[in-house]
Amino acid sequence: MKKGKATIHDIAEKLNITASTVSRALNDNPRISENTKKLVMKMAKQLNYQPNHIASALRSGKSKLIGVLVPTANRNFFSSVVRGIEDIANELDYKVIISQSYEDYEKEVQNVEALLNARVDGIIASIGKNTENFDHFQKVLDKGIPLVLFDRITNEIDVSQVIIDDYQGAYDTTKHLIEQGCKRIVHFTSPKKINIYRERLRGYEDALKDNKIEIDPELIEESNMQLEDGRTCMENIIKKGIPFDAVFSSSDYAVMGALQVLREHKIIVPNQVKLAGFGNEPFTSFTFPPITTVDQKSIPMGRVTAETFFELLKSDGKRGNNQKTVLKPELIIRESTQKRN
Amino acid sequence: MKKGKATIHDIAEKLNITASTVSRALNDNPRISENTKKLVMKMAKQLNYQPNHIASALRSGKSKLIGVLVPTANRNFFSSVVRGIEDIANELDYKVIISQSYEDYEKEVQNVEALLNARVDGIIASIGKNTENFDHFQKVLDKGIPLVLFDRITNEIDVSQVIIDDYQGAYDTTKHLIEQGCKRIVHFTSPKKINIYRERLRGYEDALKDNKIEIDPELIEESNMQLEDGRTCMENIIKKGIPFDAVFSSSDYAVMGALQVLREHKIIVPNQVKLAGFGNEPFTSFTFPPITTVDQKSIPMGRVTAETFFELLKSDGKRGNNQKTVLKPELIIRESTQKRN
Repeated sequence: MKKGKATIHDIAEKLNITASTVSRALNDNPRISENTKKLVMKMAKQLNYQPNHIASALRSGKSKLIGVLVPTANRNFFSSVVRGIEDIANELDYKVIISQSYEDYEKEVQNVEALLNARVDGIIASIGKNTENFDHFQKVLDKGIPLVLFDRITNEIDVSQVIIDDYQGAYDTTKHLIEQGCKRIVHFTSPKKINIYRERLRGYEDALKDNKIEIDPELIEESNMQLEDGRTCMENIIKKGIPFDAVFSSSDYAVMGALQVLREHKIIVPNQVKLAGFGNEPFTSFTFPPITTVDQKSIPMGRVTAETFFELLKSDGKRGNNQKTVLKPELIIRESTQKRN
Repeated sequence: MKKGKATIHDIAEKLNITASTVSRALNDNPRISENTKKLVMKMAKQLNYQPNHIASALRSGKSKLIGVLVPTANRNFFSSVVRGIEDIANELDYKVIISQSYEDYEKEVQNVEALLNARVDGIIASIGKNTENFDHFQKVLDKGIPLVLFDRITNEIDVSQVIIDDYQGAYDTTKHLIEQGCKRIVHFTSPKKINIYRERLRGYEDALKDNKIEIDPELIEESNMQLEDGRTCMENIIKKGIPFDAVFSSSDYAVMGALQVLREHKIIVPNQVKLAGFGNEPFTSFTFPPITTVDQKSIPMGRVTAETFFELLKSDGKRGNNQKTVLKPELIIRESTQKRN
C-alpha cells in the first residue's frame, strides 16, 4: 500500500476495475451498475478514501478543460507532473490538454493563446528556458483566468507556484559526494539562469563552502545540458588536465554524456570518479553503474499543483493571496557515488 | 545538412533565429522586419525550401487547433511523432494540443470528447492497447471531422492511417540475430494483440521458418512489456532451464529489464546472449552494451501523418478515399548483437 491518502486509483486497483469506473460509481453515474457502486463504496470506506470536496464549489457551465503548458512532454519529470495533475483533475471530471513550447519563447506565447482559444478554464505552466518576458502570463492573470506555475517559475509576476527546493537537493548531493571523499567536484550547469539551475548552483557552492572546499570556477561547465552537451563538458574538463574526482550535473541527460566519455577514457565510475545527476529520469537506474540523482517528487508536485489550481478556480481566480508551495526533493543514492572498499 | 527537403527549421538554424520568425517572415507578417524577411527569403532560396501550398486551400474561420491523442506523451516514439506533426502544423500556423489516454479505454473515449469540446479542427490519434470498440472514432468520422490514425490503428473503421512495417522490422531483426549465429531466440510480446505486436510476432516467426529454425512456444513470453515485465519474463526463461542465445523484445523497455537480469546472473551480453529491442528509445544507446533496436521513423511518421491530416482538412474530411501509408523501419545494429571475435 502506498503512503498517504487513498485515491480512486487505489480503489480501482483493489477491485481490478478502471479509475474512471470508480470515479463514476462515486458520482452515482447511471451508467454504472448498482452492484459495482456498492463494491466501490465499500472499498472506499475500507481504504478511508476522502473525496475531494472542492468539486462541489466549482463553477458550472465551463469547458472542464485545463491547459497544461510544458517545455516538453517527453521528460519523465514533466510527464509525471502531468500525471499527478490528471489524477486530481479526473477525480473532478476535468480533462487535461497539453501544449509544448520546446523552450521556444514565441511558441510559448502562441501556445498560451491556443489554450485560451481551446476555451480552457485555466492554465498550469512551466516556463521555457529562454523566456525572459512574462506578459503572456500576466495577460492570463489580468483576464481573471486561473494560472499556476510549477518548477520553472518567475517571481516577476504575482502568481501561484509550486516548486521543489532545488537548493536543498543540490546541497544534499554535493554534501554526499564530499562525505564519499570527493574534493574536486565538477558541476554542470546552464548559462540560462532560470530559478532551478541558479538554485542548484547555489546549493553546490554552499555545500563546498560549508565544508571548507574552495570553489574552483575551472570545475564549473556551462551548457544546454543535453546528452551531447554532457559529453562536450566532460571532454573539456579532461582536456584541461586538472584533477577531478566527481561530477554533479544539474541534468540527468548531461550526466549520461559524462558517463560515456569517462568510459571511453577508461576512467572507472565510481572508483576513480563519482557521478550524480538531478531529476531521477528512469534511465539513471538502467545504466551501469546506476546513477545517484535527485528525485523531484514529480507526481506529488502535479497533485499539489492541481489542488492549488482548483482552489484558484473555486475563487474565480480573483483572490490576491496566491499560494506558493515548496516541496522537499529526495537524494537517491546509487552505485555511481558509493565508496568501494 | 540533413537529408530530404529543407524545412523552416533548417532556415532558422542557418540564420540563428527561431522557426516561428522564419514562418512569419515567409508569411509576410508585419511584425517581422523587412531586413529579416530578406534574409529569410534569400536562405529559403539557397536551401531550395519548398513551402507547403496546402495552406492556401485550408478552410478559414477555424480554431486552427489539432487535437493529438496518444497513449502517453512520455515515450520518445510518441513525442517524436508529435514533434513531426508540429513541424508541419506550425508551418501552416496550426497549433497542436495533446491528450493522453494512458491505455485506458474510457479515458480515450472521454478525451475524444474533450478535444472536440476544445473545438479542434480535427484529430490525430494512436489507439490504446485496451481499446476494442471504435465507436468514439466512428463518431468523429460521422461528423465529417478529419481523423488520422498512426502506428496503433484498426481496420474496423474506414479511416486514414500511417503505420510502419512492423512485420519487416521484426523480420529483419530476427534474421540479423540468426546471421549472428543465434538459434534459440526468446521473443517478448504482448497478450494484447493490437496490430503492432501481432505483426512483430509474425515477422519473428516467419524469419525463423524461412531459416528452418523451429518455433518453440516455450521461448515466447507475453507481458505488458514495461521494464519490470521484462525482468519477470527473463527470470521466467532462466527458471525454465531451457537453452537460449538471444532475446528479441517487441519493446525497448522490456529489453532493459532483460539486460538487468542477465547482468545479475553474470550472463554476458553479447557473448553469451544477444539482445535486441524495438523502438529506438534514446536509453538503448546509453546502456552498456548499447542495444540493437528498430527505429520507427517517428519524426517522418509525424510529418506524413500531418500531411495526410491537412489533405483531409482541405477536402473537408468528406472524401471516401482515405490514405493508408506504410513507412519502412530501420534496424539499428549496436554492440548487443555483434559477434565477438
